[in-house]
Amino acid sequence: MMNVSNIIERIRELISDDTLVQLKDELNGYHSADLADIFVELRPDERLECFKLLELEKAADLVEYLSPQLQVELLGDIDEEVASKIITKLPHDAAADVLGDMEDDESETYLDKLPHKFSAEVRELLTYNEDTAGGIMNPIVLTVNSDMSVLDVLNHIRIKAEKDNMELYYVYVVDKQNHLLGVVSLRKLLTSPINQKVEDIMISDIVKLHVDDYSDYVTDVFTKYQYNALPVVDLYNRLKGMITWDDVQDLVEEETTEEIYQSSGISTELADEDEILSGNIFHAIRARTPWLFITLLGEFIAVHVAHHFDSTLAALPIVAIFMPLLAGLGGNIGTQSITLMVRGFSTGQVSLSSALYHIFREMFVGLCIGILFGALVTLATWGWQHNIELGLVVGLAMAINMTMATVIGTFTPFALKTLKVDPAVASGPVIATTIDVVGLAVYFTLVSTFLIKII
Amino acid sequence: MMNVSNIIERIRELISDDTLVQLKDELNGYHSADLADIFVELRPDERLECFKLLELEKAADLVEYLSPQLQVELLGDIDEEVASKIITKLPHDAAADVLGDMEDDESETYLDKLPHKFSAEVRELLTYNEDTAGGIMNPIVLTVNSDMSVLDVLNHIRIKAEKDNMELYYVYVVDKQNHLLGVVSLRKLLTSPINQKVEDIMISDIVKLHVDDYSDYVTDVFTKYQYNALPVVDLYNRLKGMITWDDVQDLVEEETTEEIYQSSGISTELADEDEILSGNIFHAIRARTPWLFITLLGEFIAVHVAHHFDSTLAALPIVAIFMPLLAGLGGNIGTQSITLMVRGFSTGQVSLSSALYHIFREMFVGLCIGILFGALVTLATWGWQHNIELGLVVGLAMAINMTMATVIGTFTPFALKTLKVDPAVASGPVIATTIDVVGLAVYFTLVSTFLIKII
Repeated sequence: MMNVSNIIERIRELISDDTLVQLKDELNGYHSADLADIFVELRPDERLECFKLLELEKAADLVEYLSPQLQVELLGDIDEEVASKIITKLPHDAAADVLGDMEDDESETYLDKLPHKFSAEVRELLTYNEDTAGGIMNPIVLTVNSDMSVLDVLNHIRIKAEKDNMELYYVYVVDKQNHLLGVVSLRKLLTSPINQKVEDIMISDIVKLHVDDYSDYVTDVFTKYQYNALPVVDLYNRLKGMITWDDVQDLVEEETTEEIYQSSGISTELADEDEILSGNIFHAIRARTPWLFITLLGEFIAVHVAHHFDSTLAALPIVAIFMPLLAGLGGNIGTQSITLMVRGFSTGQVSLSSALYHIFREMFVGLCIGILFGALVTLATWGWQHNIELGLVVGLAMAINMTMATVIGTFTPFALKTLKVDPAVASGPVIATTIDVVGLAVYFTLVSTFLIKII
Repeated sequence: MMNVSNIIERIRELISDDTLVQLKDELNGYHSADLADIFVELRPDERLECFKLLELEKAADLVEYLSPQLQVELLGDIDEEVASKIITKLPHDAAADVLGDMEDDESETYLDKLPHKFSAEVRELLTYNEDTAGGIMNPIVLTVNSDMSVLDVLNHIRIKAEKDNMELYYVYVVDKQNHLLGVVSLRKLLTSPINQKVEDIMISDIVKLHVDDYSDYVTDVFTKYQYNALPVVDLYNRLKGMITWDDVQDLVEEETTEEIYQSSGISTELADEDEILSGNIFHAIRARTPWLFITLLGEFIAVHVAHHFDSTLAALPIVAIFMPLLAGLGGNIGTQSITLMVRGFSTGQVSLSSALYHIFREMFVGLCIGILFGALVTLATWGWQHNIELGLVVGLAMAINMTMATVIGTFTPFALKTLKVDPAVASGPVIATTIDVVGLAVYFTLVSTFLIKII
């Protein structure tokens, strides 16, 4: 790909030299995806100046590649008439996304300026929940009737697709009331005899989505069936639009981000994903506090467990210094187990039916690594403190702790899944705390059983 | 979608009733993606029995949806002649993947049985590194010459695409030596006048891949430009194949899994991703040990820090019980910061140029949450131990610890990125350990400065 910082430098030179004709020429020559990368790195004033130099088509194409914040920023800062023209050139779903991200009165202004038909269609899209298939789909779909011939369809495409700037993957076959009857791929269309009837080449066993399907279901269906595009119907099987794989690509990225955020206890329900990284800082704080608070409560239990053994601690203060070692490694290997299970559930490699297999497998992994690390810790402590009993107790605690951590880390996601709770939610912090509590209890019990008696 | 467990039950009934005609009928009626879900849940013997009942076309289609392990298992267990026929029906890239996953002598047996042309093409694919564009691409691409008319191309498609079972997204324009000159989308083809020359409607500014490009570059290009398919050329710009978005979808899922594994210190370089979850258990142990070992070394430093203050601990053993609380919350909020940065780097929302912004933003988040949690801890400790000085010291340590944890968690990924090290690698465990060390040092310093003197 290209070196963005060199290009940025060149753009700044051209701006400061005021050679705008040259700049305009160069900007319009870039691929819109490259332009998007460039625009992200420009300062807002430079961004606006460059955006104004783009041809309408290019500007519309660029807008599709930009983040919602930049879309609203740029369209809000240019002339309203020009902005309306750019929005009109967007696919309907992209236009609805842009308008949906604006303030209500601002989007109303634009909707009033847009061509009537376009505006009405976009308004309809805006009535759907943006997290459902209805809110994601593009309503402009190429439809044909089942009694048309291949040649009819090809002629129909020639007229319609050009005029409506239509995305073309499949041709959808509908009846007069727009009920979805079948689908024909372009490949089938291009390789069938031109006088064949559409109904003879269409597939009528259709994988389709419903306008109210949630986005995670939409991505699941796309990931499973691997089609380029899927039709979206309403309750009565009337074709309302289609969703293409590039829309889904963005959704998958969002879902992955949510999964990763949740694993470290960042709630994506209390704040918009974008805000957590760079928006309103108090929303970000709110998104991060709940699971930290639960960790706080959990760690207070750990404090109480330790407190329960304060006579042990007073008798043998040296045992305290090994607490972070045990908690750290237990937390670490337990997090590995939970990561494997949670990720396995989302890729489909782990299912409830394999729970026992994974629990025993992880227990064995924990036992092997626990024995290895327990031995290392025993030797290190013995060599350092010249106290073999202390070394043995710490090492034994380490082995038990690591084995238990893998079991807890594996069992919990299965338990949550059985209870129909998303195992990704807050798994990490909660389990680390549980392992702290259990690990300390084991350690201090071992210490007070073996060491205190010996002393 | 469908309820797999009901279907499995029905299949078992049909097998035990020996009504195989009925079973064959039903199995062949499922979508191959659904069949793949069903096959995963069947026992190996049932799986084999069902696989043998599938028609050749269906079996080949199913194989594409199966995991490499199941592909090799099923094809290895059926008659070699039938297996060869199924492999011949696969797209070239899928055939190469299947054969590449077999033992060398096994794949040689099949390669000798396959039709000569197919076998030669698949052999060529197998010469490419499987993690490069050459190893991912499908070599069967529809090519045309620049002086052909739209009508010529449509006729050419009718013959070639049908015969070679070709994926059709774009038509690639090449010269006589197969150098890539341009690309025409099917949409453009279908909406252009039929007597227009290809060279007048082709795009010659082509986004293309090179056979030696690594898979992470391939996914980056697809994610950025959002094309359905991209051409792959060799050093001399000769067209060698194309990669389609569904191949990339699998790659993206693998990369995400690697990213998530690495964040919890599971090395994907020491063991195959599949083995970590369910393959050879000793490979899994090897993949998980290295970063645990580094954690072990790091936590020994924490132990030494604590040991440095053993007179403090002996004088005031109660302070030891707050160690897990401080380490737990510091580790937690620090992990949140690092998660945000590492994910931000992979989605492109975070870049080196915004380092200072993010460090200060996270520091502020840490400070706010730290003050809040410090106050809570102070109050809780005061109420519980009736010791306001102890409460204040623990609370202050908590606030400092959480603020420092966000700074360390944010700074480290930027530092790694500057040093051209992937920030995803082992970020989690290493930083948690660092925070343990620094946090304990701060805590014991506060304790020995304020509490011991007071006492």
